Amino acid sequence: MPKLLVCNVCVLWQHSNERERREREREREKHTHTHTHTHTRTQTDGLHCTLHSAHFLALCCTHSSSAPSASVLALCHCSLVPFSTPAAFSRHGRRLHTIMAVRHYTIDFKLCGPADHAATVRGLQSIFQEQEMTETVHDTEGHGYLATFIGKNGRFAVMRVHSHGLVTFDLQCCKGDDQAQVDNLLNALEKKLRTLLSGKIQRVKRLPALRRGEEIDRYWPTADGRLVEYDIDEIVYEKESEYQNIKILHSQQFGNILILNGDVNLAESDLPYTQAIMGSGKEHYAGKEVLILGGGDGGILNEAVKLKPKMITMVEIDQLVIDGCRKHMRKTCGNVLDNLKGDCYEVLVQDCVPVLKKYAEEGRTFDYVINDLTAVPISTAPEEESTWEFLRLILDLSIKVLRPSGKYFTQGNCVNLSEALSEYEELLGRLSCKVDFSKEVVCVPSYMELWVFYTIWKK
Amino acid sequence: MPKLLVCNVCVLWQHSNERERREREREREKHTHTHTHTHTRTQTDGLHCTLHSAHFLALCCTHSSSAPSASVLALCHCSLVPFSTPAAFSRHGRRLHTIMAVRHYTIDFKLCGPADHAATVRGLQSIFQEQEMTETVHDTEGHGYLATFIGKNGRFAVMRVHSHGLVTFDLQCCKGDDQAQVDNLLNALEKKLRTLLSGKIQRVKRLPALRRGEEIDRYWPTADGRLVEYDIDEIVYEKESEYQNIKILHSQQFGNILILNGDVNLAESDLPYTQAIMGSGKEHYAGKEVLILGGGDGGILNEAVKLKPKMITMVEIDQLVIDGCRKHMRKTCGNVLDNLKGDCYEVLVQDCVPVLKKYAEEGRTFDYVINDLTAVPISTAPEEESTWEFLRLILDLSIKVLRPSGKYFTQGNCVNLSEALSEYEELLGRLSCKVDFSKEVVCVPSYMELWVFYTIWKK
Repeated sequence: MPKLLVCNVCVLWQHSNERERREREREREKHTHTHTHTHTRTQTDGLHCTLHSAHFLALCCTHSSSAPSASVLALCHCSLVPFSTPAAFSRHGRRLHTIMAVRHYTIDFKLCGPADHAATVRGLQSIFQEQEMTETVHDTEGHGYLATFIGKNGRFAVMRVHSHGLVTFDLQCCKGDDQAQVDNLLNALEKKLRTLLSGKIQRVKRLPALRRGEEIDRYWPTADGRLVEYDIDEIVYEKESEYQNIKILHSQQFGNILILNGDVNLAESDLPYTQAIMGSGKEHYAGKEVLILGGGDGGILNEAVKLKPKMITMVEIDQLVIDGCRKHMRKTCGNVLDNLKGDCYEVLVQDCVPVLKKYAEEGRTFDYVINDLTAVPISTAPEEESTWEFLRLILDLSIKVLRPSGKYFTQGNCVNLSEALSEYEELLGRLSCKVDFSKEVVCVPSYMELWVFYTIWKK
Repeated sequence: MPKLLVCNVCVLWQHSNERERREREREREKHTHTHTHTHTRTQTDGLHCTLHSAHFLALCCTHSSSAPSASVLALCHCSLVPFSTPAAFSRHGRRLHTIMAVRHYTIDFKLCGPADHAATVRGLQSIFQEQEMTETVHDTEGHGYLATFIGKNGRFAVMRVHSHGLVTFDLQCCKGDDQAQVDNLLNALEKKLRTLLSGKIQRVKRLPALRRGEEIDRYWPTADGRLVEYDIDEIVYEKESEYQNIKILHSQQFGNILILNGDVNLAESDLPYTQAIMGSGKEHYAGKEVLILGGGDGGILNEAVKLKPKMITMVEIDQLVIDGCRKHMRKTCGNVLDNLKGDCYEVLVQDCVPVLKKYAEEGRTFDYVINDLTAVPISTAPEEESTWEFLRLILDLSIKVLRPSGKYFTQGNCVNLSEALSEYEELLGRLSCKVDFSKEVVCVPSYMELWVFYTIWKK
């Protein structure tokens, strides 16, 4: 038995796939004498066990931080492979195809005045020498000091001293690189710079590493263009339909999240979205006729059927959205998508525009029309014009099929995009039928920004 | 009148500080003939007006996107200065001291197999040549292709083709650099790479630029270590007290946010936090005696006095927190911090430990004890041990002053730090007095992560 199995963490290897375990055992035995062995506990990833040899081999175990105690820690990502061909495994030990990924670390020193380039650079030399990093100094044509460094295992660093009081440091490491070594380098550098720049420092900022090129993308920026990292740990469903790219990703805290064409649509945590777009609990659905436009995640349908309406008609264009959500968003849709027809509802897998036109011609009307199709466009650039046109078309048709006492519910966009929201409100004033509206700001958990919802009715 | 004042946007300069306006006018007149002039509408920052000369001058106006329409756009950041000495102005046109800041752009191409280094690099050469960027190719000792580029105005780029299917591109620009030029470079590069790598691309990811070294720091990572960017546009209050660093920053959507030692404590949007730590509306405060530990933002006190309790005692150690929140967090604290004593409350500006000890000795008890002091530590590393000790001390003392029918409310931490929460729950089982507890997961708007709250009572 290889020596490293003494470790309480690594012993969990024995619970993973038997064939893979044996393969790994053989690999370990080959390299066990030259291994060094480090455990680190990180804020984000639970417990790491890193092993590295003098040659090229690395083993990195990351254990789920959501496990209730150390004794039942689950193995979530493992690789025991040469540095030059990293591999990854899913939460359940399934081998993902070979991937290349980079962790990009930054440390920035904001100063209250210019730094002494020469002294700063000289003071750091021993750190880079210890790390066996080869330095190249660049001619910046008067824009401060700039040096790049090449290190072991593909490590690459940029050190920049800007003329007017900013020192930036970047370190890019390949995923699987020894985490303890990388942390040591960053800590040593930060400590040394704090000494060298002491008395001049206004702020030191060391951000969580950017994870670039990873199998699972964790960055889904907000509608108002801010960078946010989600706690996504698994790709649950991915399809390219006739209409859009459909992803369902698993977030540790939000549950499964439906993402359409890169936009976070709804997570299993997001009942506040569904409640808001149904009138925030202030409406009486019992005995009413309801029309849902879109809503393929089944959230609105699932909540609405509980309120004993007379009939709900839902018109969703994309069967693949329904298929994915029926299986992977059950906290949202319950069992309402298991059949396209129930006691008090029917799901039409169709484009809603011809359906709305037909209803308008027939004079069919509804007590509630809920538009869950698309958010207000965030721009009025030419390429967005068609979205505004579509929004107006849907609005006009929806108001036509709305009873005089009826209500039309829809989302707007994030509260920060006030220009886009104003434009939408102006559009409401230019409809063929006069309407009035109210709005509400709601916190939808997985959105990471406050969202505006509208209630519209005939004047 | 300089030509550029024809622009509807720039004409707003006339509303800013008169002396500064004249200074700028003079600067403009000197350079007006060599200016070029670009308007861009961005998702995040509203409308930009950028002017640049062949020499060194740039003017950049960013207009608040929260203004309702173009006619009342407010001027929020402006600089008309040589590139080598950028200056900044606050939302209200006040000059901030000279700052250096960098926008760091990334574009990553994740591929399904190795890329052809030589062909990719050759294909991009014309773009870098057009941008007059000087290339340095580095020896990576077998870790793929790596080139750095120095461009105009301190621009610096890194292009890396990793061996196993990842191409990363970084561009660092000084703030105030021509946004349209930078966007053009990034767009051209992305377009060309999409062509060169076509058929091999699994994902293209272009993140919102990292803002490094800016006057106002927008990055306040979550408790579980994720990178999130806040929509912060103003530093409202900053003090270094005897106990901690106190910041109150303004967020467009969340209102003012209190940040203590770098931890987001509470925003004006965060009534759900206050409601949760008071028992989520399920408790009857009328006629009761309440003890609040901490709570210097005044949120709990403000909500509690509305419920007509017999008496609330609040023990907050830091007068400077109270001072800042009284003035800048009025949506949270109302007027309860205007005086330290009211009809049914008293605020003691003291360390709560001796106060609790005194109450315990005197046999004084409360119906509700609300601990708003500190979150559960996220680590059990030696340096955190003292926090755990403190938590246990407070818990033991609080249970001592709790009536047999009383309840103790406190926050835990974010839902993802399940190990830390388990450790806390184990601690609850080891108190000198037997207790039981329930917990609730709550979405606190400004936290950008779900948060756990505890209710604890005597068995």
